[in-house]
Amino acid sequence: MNNKITIFKNVTVITMNENKDVIENGYVAYKGNKIIYVGTNNIEEALLADNEVEIIDGEESILMPGMVNCHTHASMVPFRSLADDYKDRLKRYLFPLEQRLVDEKLTYVGAKYAIAEMLLGGVTTFCDMYYFEDEVAKASKELNIRGVLCETILNFSAPDAKEPFGGLDYSRVFIERWKNDSLITPGIAPHAPYTNTDESLKEAYEISKKYQVPLTMHVAEMDYELSEYKEKYNLTPVQYLDELGILDSNFISAHTVLVNDNDIDILKKRGVGVSHNIGANAKGAKGVAPIIKMREEGINIGLGTDGPMSGNTLDIITQMSQVGKIHKLFNSNRTLLPSEELVEMATIGGAKVLGMGNKIGSIEIGKVADLTLIETQSVNMQPIYDYYASIVYSANPSNVDTVVVDGRIVVKNKKLLSGDFTEIRRELVDLKEMISEVAKSL
Amino acid sequence: MNNKITIFKNVTVITMNENKDVIENGYVAYKGNKIIYVGTNNIEEALLADNEVEIIDGEESILMPGMVNCHTHASMVPFRSLADDYKDRLKRYLFPLEQRLVDEKLTYVGAKYAIAEMLLGGVTTFCDMYYFEDEVAKASKELNIRGVLCETILNFSAPDAKEPFGGLDYSRVFIERWKNDSLITPGIAPHAPYTNTDESLKEAYEISKKYQVPLTMHVAEMDYELSEYKEKYNLTPVQYLDELGILDSNFISAHTVLVNDNDIDILKKRGVGVSHNIGANAKGAKGVAPIIKMREEGINIGLGTDGPMSGNTLDIITQMSQVGKIHKLFNSNRTLLPSEELVEMATIGGAKVLGMGNKIGSIEIGKVADLTLIETQSVNMQPIYDYYASIVYSANPSNVDTVVVDGRIVVKNKKLLSGDFTEIRRELVDLKEMISEVAKSL
Ligand SMILES: [Zn+2]
Ligand SMILES: [Zn+2]
Repeated sequence: MNNKITIFKNVTVITMNENKDVIENGYVAYKGNKIIYVGTNNIEEALLADNEVEIIDGEESILMPGMVNCHTHASMVPFRSLADDYKDRLKRYLFPLEQRLVDEKLTYVGAKYAIAEMLLGGVTTFCDMYYFEDEVAKASKELNIRGVLCETILNFSAPDAKEPFGGLDYSRVFIERWKNDSLITPGIAPHAPYTNTDESLKEAYEISKKYQVPLTMHVAEMDYELSEYKEKYNLTPVQYLDELGILDSNFISAHTVLVNDNDIDILKKRGVGVSHNIGANAKGAKGVAPIIKMREEGINIGLGTDGPMSGNTLDIITQMSQVGKIHKLFNSNRTLLPSEELVEMATIGGAKVLGMGNKIGSIEIGKVADLTLIETQSVNMQPIYDYYASIVYSANPSNVDTVVVDGRIVVKNKKLLSGDFTEIRRELVDLKEMISEVAKSL
Repeated sequence: MNNKITIFKNVTVITMNENKDVIENGYVAYKGNKIIYVGTNNIEEALLADNEVEIIDGEESILMPGMVNCHTHASMVPFRSLADDYKDRLKRYLFPLEQRLVDEKLTYVGAKYAIAEMLLGGVTTFCDMYYFEDEVAKASKELNIRGVLCETILNFSAPDAKEPFGGLDYSRVFIERWKNDSLITPGIAPHAPYTNTDESLKEAYEISKKYQVPLTMHVAEMDYELSEYKEKYNLTPVQYLDELGILDSNFISAHTVLVNDNDIDILKKRGVGVSHNIGANAKGAKGVAPIIKMREEGINIGLGTDGPMSGNTLDIITQMSQVGKIHKLFNSNRTLLPSEELVEMATIGGAKVLGMGNKIGSIEIGKVADLTLIETQSVNMQPIYDYYASIVYSANPSNVDTVVVDGRIVVKNKKLLSGDFTEIRRELVDLKEMISEVAKSL
């Protein structure tokens, strides 16, 4: 066990604790991977007695909890910027590209690049839905990011399963393999109601229940999804899932755009958490999930980027301002969702959605050290009268200076320490030509 | 006259010319401040005969026209992040802060900081509406940015004019002083219809007409503006301005949110250009300007950030993705406003709005060299299958590597060359305490 102590000094600490304390001229110390001090006392001397101490001078930076990306498909980054403005993109480009191109190598190379981007942008935990999740787990361990990794289940042959629903078998093995890992939380991901059957959904739920692992799904994202369930069962997708009996507190509902008050009531009763993916939902013209209402009802809301072919970037800083602006606009109310609430969704909110509210998401003694340091030297970061507003409306991912995951410094001075970025980039760029060729044929 | 030749090589040139040519492995050369070559020929040897040549290796970067910020109040940057989520912020915070704090020094210090931010973010031309525009002009000349600088006119005493409408006199002197400058285009800015009178608006128009300089105004931004003109005259704000006879091709209409089809028809007939400021309009819950309809009618549309107390950041890259996403969302159509059209608004569209379509806004032989180089080395910038989509949905202002204004390199390797940023930052930060004190008393 690593017992090294690391001290951040000269920082403003955005704790995101219960009181939402903001500590100027603060100190944060952690030992091994656990936070042992948060406050204004100069603890340097007391702790320097310890034989191994690293001191990081934050130079007036903002130290916040590492951000949580509650929904993505990391390994799709090799396809980013392809077919951005096309109609019916999912079925015309996205599924065919995946069928023809996604293998273990692309999944691994893509995951590494995406994880590098997330870490460099201050994301310390992500929830992934994809194929070959073993490869994503391998990449996560190498680069040291916290991953909730969920193997996809759907009703046609997938890149990693010839038979429909092959992800169910993959999941069982995958969950057994990773269930005791410190960084990886394995899970299961039926792609959507409309790409599954009653049986496959129930089976996925049984797996989630047996191992007590997360189950995540795209829910109420598509207009055709809504009309299909209306026609077939006279139910909303949420009602349908509830009648199947598969909604519980392990359930992470991605998107959740086309829901009514009754659906929200169901989600609340079942303890479902929601990943709000506004950037991708806006770009895809899908609609605005009613998260104001959901929050009022006490549903946990986190933020997600969705896959980089939908949302393009993988950081969460960029999402916060979009969430604020779009909800203010849609509700004609500039006072809605003050910046503090947006930072909450990006951190502790997301942690709760992933079932990790007791472990990550805030800077408090006893929690693991997942930390993001935002510098305030760059031109866009001054002046600061309101730290939350500056994070939400001034910052961009390039302001992330230092990132700690599970006590390990993975980004410092805006450079990736846990991997060789030049190599990671070269491997990604090498895939471009092949992907271009296939895309042209579609 | 400076006859030095500068050559960019190893770049993808987003020309934004009539054909929207995109030139991979391209070269762009300029002599003095004029572009003399755009194409794929290796012109190094031919031009190296010339005795002073600088060659910039773009290393696979994207060279695009310098971006145009069609509406801001640059000197308000000292107030950024203050009172972000408050109701009635304009009258409760913004005007009182300005009345008590804005003087020549704050205007100058703020303008320098804001200009540094714009240049570092790839903006080479901005249209400003504020007080003490002489100070903004001084700052613009020092840091070498192209400015369309418009002195504010309103019906109460302003920071630089004890008497209401004092800006009219200021404007006449200001325009005479700067009318022949190579970088500064002086103009005039009645703040809004509801903060002016028939007389002040007509007088501002006469000045604009006499000198043939831009006139810019906040138009149809506020719901109370709409109801006031409905009640008083049974007219829309646009109809009211048209009946006054002050709309023409020198008119730059900022915001223009609450307009109907008839208003759009008027704007089109009069040759008015529109600055679309989506970030600020969304954050302020003002509504979505109908630019899709305006574009169909052939109205020139540029992008603006609005003041940094409203829109927070001053770069235009951040605006493009917001424009795309919000209009796709509002119109439930993901194919609307493809990235190329967003880059168009950010460059040549904005140039036309400011009456500079023949001089700036595209990379073509004979135009002045206002150029922005976007690096593609950073993690968020790969892969690229569609250069426009990558600029719009992947890039952020930190990807701007090199900026040229009027032939002069003002930013290189992401550092400001035309001023001492450390000093500019220190002067801004020094204002914070005083501003905090006053803000607390409001
Ligand atoms: Zn998704
Ligand atoms: Zn304005």
